[in-house]
Amino acid sequence: MRLMRVGSPGAERPVVEQDGAVFDLEPLTADLDGAFLATDGIARVRAALNAGELSETSIEGERVGAPVARPSAVVCIGMNYAAHAAESGAEPPKRPVVFLKTPNTVAGPDDVAYIPRGSTRTDWEVELGIVIGRRASYLSSPDEARAHIAGYVTGNDLSEREFQIEVSGGQWSKGKCAPGFSPLGPWLVPAEEVDPTNLRLRSWVNGEPRQDSTTADMIFGTDEIVHDLSQYMALEPGDVVLTGTPQGVALSGRFPYLKAGDVVEIEVEGLGRQRQVFEQA
Amino acid sequence: MRLMRVGSPGAERPVVEQDGAVFDLEPLTADLDGAFLATDGIARVRAALNAGELSETSIEGERVGAPVARPSAVVCIGMNYAAHAAESGAEPPKRPVVFLKTPNTVAGPDDVAYIPRGSTRTDWEVELGIVIGRRASYLSSPDEARAHIAGYVTGNDLSEREFQIEVSGGQWSKGKCAPGFSPLGPWLVPAEEVDPTNLRLRSWVNGEPRQDSTTADMIFGTDEIVHDLSQYMALEPGDVVLTGTPQGVALSGRFPYLKAGDVVEIEVEGLGRQRQVFEQA
Repeated sequence: MRLMRVGSPGAERPVVEQDGAVFDLEPLTADLDGAFLATDGIARVRAALNAGELSETSIEGERVGAPVARPSAVVCIGMNYAAHAAESGAEPPKRPVVFLKTPNTVAGPDDVAYIPRGSTRTDWEVELGIVIGRRASYLSSPDEARAHIAGYVTGNDLSEREFQIEVSGGQWSKGKCAPGFSPLGPWLVPAEEVDPTNLRLRSWVNGEPRQDSTTADMIFGTDEIVHDLSQYMALEPGDVVLTGTPQGVALSGRFPYLKAGDVVEIEVEGLGRQRQVFEQA
Repeated sequence: MRLMRVGSPGAERPVVEQDGAVFDLEPLTADLDGAFLATDGIARVRAALNAGELSETSIEGERVGAPVARPSAVVCIGMNYAAHAAESGAEPPKRPVVFLKTPNTVAGPDDVAYIPRGSTRTDWEVELGIVIGRRASYLSSPDEARAHIAGYVTGNDLSEREFQIEVSGGQWSKGKCAPGFSPLGPWLVPAEEVDPTNLRLRSWVNGEPRQDSTTADMIFGTDEIVHDLSQYMALEPGDVVLTGTPQGVALSGRFPYLKAGDVVEIEVEGLGRQRQVFEQA
């Protein structure tokens, strides 16, 4: 079961895909947002599907939006793969490193992406994204986390390394918030259908492979991340947590940074593939 | 002219105060939010006031909420006063240092505040807050910034220093996002009525003075901040930018950190005073 939002930016409609057929979700909910997720929306979709209550629809030729409406927060975990920490010149962290992206960075998975003005070091980062289903505050153990996770998405944590590292005084958000810098989707796959502990993550630039790793290499797993974050902030339904990127980004020095005309593709196993053509902002 | 939101959390109603009288704004707008500000809301309030079209109302005994509905982003400038940078053990920055708070940290100016669980180093930070009125992206000069600023608010950038500095890998947001950590208000004062370049900022703990400085000591002024931020992110109507805190916080080592029962008061000249009683979360 794959939840999607299709249509023009800001006017997406919710649909669900199962076994190759696409069904209209508008009779059930106006949007795939925090309120939908917090009211057992995914279970209601499943029940309606099983009962044959949903009508088939076509999404042929339609733009695909992010599979969750604008979150209240996009929370990111930094340096969560040891080999990426090493290529960035850092030690693996002992506790999750947390930074934020502004929610207005969220874009559709195949939307045009932009090299920010003044940028010479725009970079890609394929990541497993967690979508929160129930408010999470002061969870008592990682075991509790799963009940607060609605599902998972593919996410590209686009980054401008000069902005992030050199003009920022070391606070990374300055290089993480350019317009369109958080493509999400194409699908929100319900947590019940995903084992997040061993998913292959890959990225390509102009068809050439860049990242190729697995979430099995994450230093902090998804449940541990949600538990840890909940000690420091309240995660809201619909919020997105990007869980870190593996080695193979341009920051490593092994690959050139992005320029206008480049095509980035990223994929997380089972969660779908994104494709962004880059233009100059 | 002072715009306010009064009523229980999540159900505030908009009012405006002028010359000691309070007027109901509900005929004009359901809330003081980005959409209101972006459609010349403040000018419409002024015109309605001048035309005598608004009805007087009483807010006696009502809770005061943050004077702007939940923003899409709370953007913060770090180390923007040289003496505070020094007391924090840092050099004054050459470019604005930027970090984010989750928007769900926004609270009313006099709401109960919470010492996070596990916290031993909860700290106060009085700040001048900018409220964005028009989307700001890639402004060409600081001179353009003023047209994107709707007004100013008093803000308390509450911080947990162990979370911020020691368990964060150096990324500050981990210590900035606990529930209720961004009290705003009581008033949104229109930009036309404020000279942000020389406002006194003060804080007290249990009636004893802590911070006492002026925005004249800011390293980067409000227009420079909005211009700079707009190169790295799109600021949305209703977003809040906290412009940094002056010296006199507990992090300096000169004062104890906060504990349950403490009372923090902060004030920015002309923008109103806040008072938070702290409880253990």
